[in-house]
Amino acid sequence: MDCSDFRKRGKEMVDYIADYIEEIEKRQVYPDLNPGYLRPMLPESAPEDPETFEDVMKDVERVIMPGVTHWHSPYFFAYFPAGQSYPSLLADMLCGAIGCIGFSWTASPACTELETVMLDWLGKMINLPKEFLAGNDGEGGGVIQGTASEASLMVLLAARTKVLQQLQLKHPELSKAEIMDKLVGYSSDQAHSSVERAGLIGGVKMKVIPSDEKFAARGPALRKAMEEDKAAGLIPFFFCATLGTTPSCAFDNLLELGPICKEENIWLHIDAAYAGSAFVCPEFRHFMKGVEFANSFNFNPHKWLLVNFDCSTLWVKKRTDLTEAFKLNPVYLQHNHQDSGLITDYRHWQIPLGRRFRSLKMWFVFRMYGVKGLQEHIRKHIRLAREFEDLVRQDERFEISAGVTLGLVCFRLKGSNELNKALLENINHTRKIHIVPCKLRDKFVLRFVICSRTTESHHVQFAWQHITELAAELLNGGSRTQGNQ
Amino acid sequence: MDCSDFRKRGKEMVDYIADYIEEIEKRQVYPDLNPGYLRPMLPESAPEDPETFEDVMKDVERVIMPGVTHWHSPYFFAYFPAGQSYPSLLADMLCGAIGCIGFSWTASPACTELETVMLDWLGKMINLPKEFLAGNDGEGGGVIQGTASEASLMVLLAARTKVLQQLQLKHPELSKAEIMDKLVGYSSDQAHSSVERAGLIGGVKMKVIPSDEKFAARGPALRKAMEEDKAAGLIPFFFCATLGTTPSCAFDNLLELGPICKEENIWLHIDAAYAGSAFVCPEFRHFMKGVEFANSFNFNPHKWLLVNFDCSTLWVKKRTDLTEAFKLNPVYLQHNHQDSGLITDYRHWQIPLGRRFRSLKMWFVFRMYGVKGLQEHIRKHIRLAREFEDLVRQDERFEISAGVTLGLVCFRLKGSNELNKALLENINHTRKIHIVPCKLRDKFVLRFVICSRTTESHHVQFAWQHITELAAELLNGGSRTQGNQ
Repeated sequence: MDCSDFRKRGKEMVDYIADYIEEIEKRQVYPDLNPGYLRPMLPESAPEDPETFEDVMKDVERVIMPGVTHWHSPYFFAYFPAGQSYPSLLADMLCGAIGCIGFSWTASPACTELETVMLDWLGKMINLPKEFLAGNDGEGGGVIQGTASEASLMVLLAARTKVLQQLQLKHPELSKAEIMDKLVGYSSDQAHSSVERAGLIGGVKMKVIPSDEKFAARGPALRKAMEEDKAAGLIPFFFCATLGTTPSCAFDNLLELGPICKEENIWLHIDAAYAGSAFVCPEFRHFMKGVEFANSFNFNPHKWLLVNFDCSTLWVKKRTDLTEAFKLNPVYLQHNHQDSGLITDYRHWQIPLGRRFRSLKMWFVFRMYGVKGLQEHIRKHIRLAREFEDLVRQDERFEISAGVTLGLVCFRLKGSNELNKALLENINHTRKIHIVPCKLRDKFVLRFVICSRTTESHHVQFAWQHITELAAELLNGGSRTQGNQ
Repeated sequence: MDCSDFRKRGKEMVDYIADYIEEIEKRQVYPDLNPGYLRPMLPESAPEDPETFEDVMKDVERVIMPGVTHWHSPYFFAYFPAGQSYPSLLADMLCGAIGCIGFSWTASPACTELETVMLDWLGKMINLPKEFLAGNDGEGGGVIQGTASEASLMVLLAARTKVLQQLQLKHPELSKAEIMDKLVGYSSDQAHSSVERAGLIGGVKMKVIPSDEKFAARGPALRKAMEEDKAAGLIPFFFCATLGTTPSCAFDNLLELGPICKEENIWLHIDAAYAGSAFVCPEFRHFMKGVEFANSFNFNPHKWLLVNFDCSTLWVKKRTDLTEAFKLNPVYLQHNHQDSGLITDYRHWQIPLGRRFRSLKMWFVFRMYGVKGLQEHIRKHIRLAREFEDLVRQDERFEISAGVTLGLVCFRLKGSNELNKALLENINHTRKIHIVPCKLRDKFVLRFVICSRTTESHHVQFAWQHITELAAELLNGGSRTQGNQ
């Protein structure tokens, strides 16, 4: 394929993408096939000789599309949203064309510098305390991570290095392993599984503290856990608070937790993966009260801010906490400017070495939507979630299972977990909409999230009507479920 | 921006990209500006109201392009190549449009299944032992990681979990921390810095063993290090061998190292980040002799196999070694098929939770190039490197610093490190070509790597003429360097 072929095929691909997005409602949102479907549809090995673009695109429809869960269908209400927008797609095309690997400033100055400035723009947009911004002479700053999991891991490791250094100075008689064995981090029982996993990777204990009746972590629970652990000789060093938990979009109480972390000198990280995007709207910023106590703050514009995956933004108040955690400087990566203090080598801020020019996506989206456009997107989703909540509340067969804060509605049929499992199975088996469940305490709950950029009121109304029809069938003793799908 | 705008702007972007790639030679390969150049060129915060696509694209040329190190310029000979090709760019556009997050099979079956099959295709293409393939009923299989750093970390953690489980069974009197404190992994002194970093992250000791005069790790050196460590009460558990080291593209001696790892029951990981792509050509597979001893094998198609970053492929012989390392299964990620044995939830194979549909890039590239096209690409690059090597050898002022194995030539002026540092500085200051250095033992060495898909003989000839002109100036006492750039 030469350059003129690319001009032709690239434009065909643009039209294919536009058609796909424009007509996505016509596709079944959730695929209907069995594991292992794909392998028999493809040859056993790569072709020796080149095939044509037409050959491949025919197979996109034949092989790929039947197996796609359409995350951008307006009938997709599962997990949390995955960001997508035209400006983001355009920026990603440019990112691929430039194709630089931005591990250091010198490897592509624009890639590094635009990222620093975009993280400042976004920090201002959500009104982060200015200590988190790089500015011209700040000690803080932001970085794009691939996912919130990586962000949590990175800050846990930074916190671990920091406390190890402090304790090794204070207690030279203790070995690194002895200290590691005593370290303990915390999150609430509603925190994302990646926080527990970060502890496993980092080789430190992570404990969960019980959340309150609103599924929020509170000060007294943290205080109690820490006091018990300290009495047992452990060393608390890290707390991961969640703003917008995955099961129910609950908010940990930072105003209670923050002062405790400060007093006990433990690293407070805030995981606002989903909810963070909502803070572009002033009316939702009350949910982030207490953010000033945090050492680090993370959310995913690739979830709800119309930026394509991956783009998880992490800010720290002291960037040296991250950069000193594992700084290694082989000669082939050294350059003249690295100790100037003016520049950033983002490879020290993350687990991977290489990185794409992801800030282009932020830049295109922020400029082509404007802050007002982004606010509108968030507000529309929250409006639609409240519309769905109202529908649930009006039906006495159903109950709302957790306070509706943003774009997620947790609901269930009044009755047993088995009943609700059957309802979920019927919904996903019918494949007109797609949702996933969660567990809240001992209750099996259905999660309904406004996900797609193009979801409108009529999709929500359709979804509710469909759910109630299936519920009625189920309550009347009929069931569409034919065993495991 | 609505769908019809996207059709228009997307096509303009395709042309912009085609122009960029077609005319990249006209751009200065390495930017000429100072750290902090970008911030003053942009507003201090995001605009309230939307701006137009034209506004943004004007700024791409004004703000971004002057700060880009053009990795795809045929005058770029630095680091290692970053993959790029038209089929890969097209596939990435489609990946963004589908925009699924493929953390589990059910979250997008095609995303998971195409990946498994593409890893089999690629494994066959480089003739990996069939134990590494998934096939219909294999115990092995492959996964796309973001970078080789993540792959090394993931397998180090899997090896750590495995040895911890074995030792806790065998020595129930030892705590996890006591075992962790005794674990030691190894790599050669030429291994990538990310291997040492993986040890730091995983909280285990990583030691380097001295390489031989050809910069290769050898059996006796590993044996000696392990015997000493065992005598001191440590527990060897991991060795990372490198095929194609970053400084000089040296190859560790697997036929010596492999049997030792097997005998001592330690995990052998192979990092072939750059060199792995060359194994699509049978004539270079002698470099991978002994691969059958490995537990895991990794290389980066995003380096040298025309696939855009990120696409780092990792295979393991026993996929449960990876998946059991940190398996956590919250309800919102459970699905009906997960225990069927037929399916793969790739989130258990990697550090992040989310993942893009990256296998589309492999599929498009493999099919539209064919194996023959990929072989041609590799062979051309190696031919060009040999052409450069010949030029260096014909000039008695220069010396070749390490055996030229693939597309990298390590060379230097006969003389002091200072002389070579000055030459490098003059080269990069003049900005007609871009290269980076390395350190081989105590010698400062220049690395010349064939990187761009479009590099031809005349670019190599130009580069050499340019280097010799600058060398002559330098040897005659002149210097273009005006202090730090």
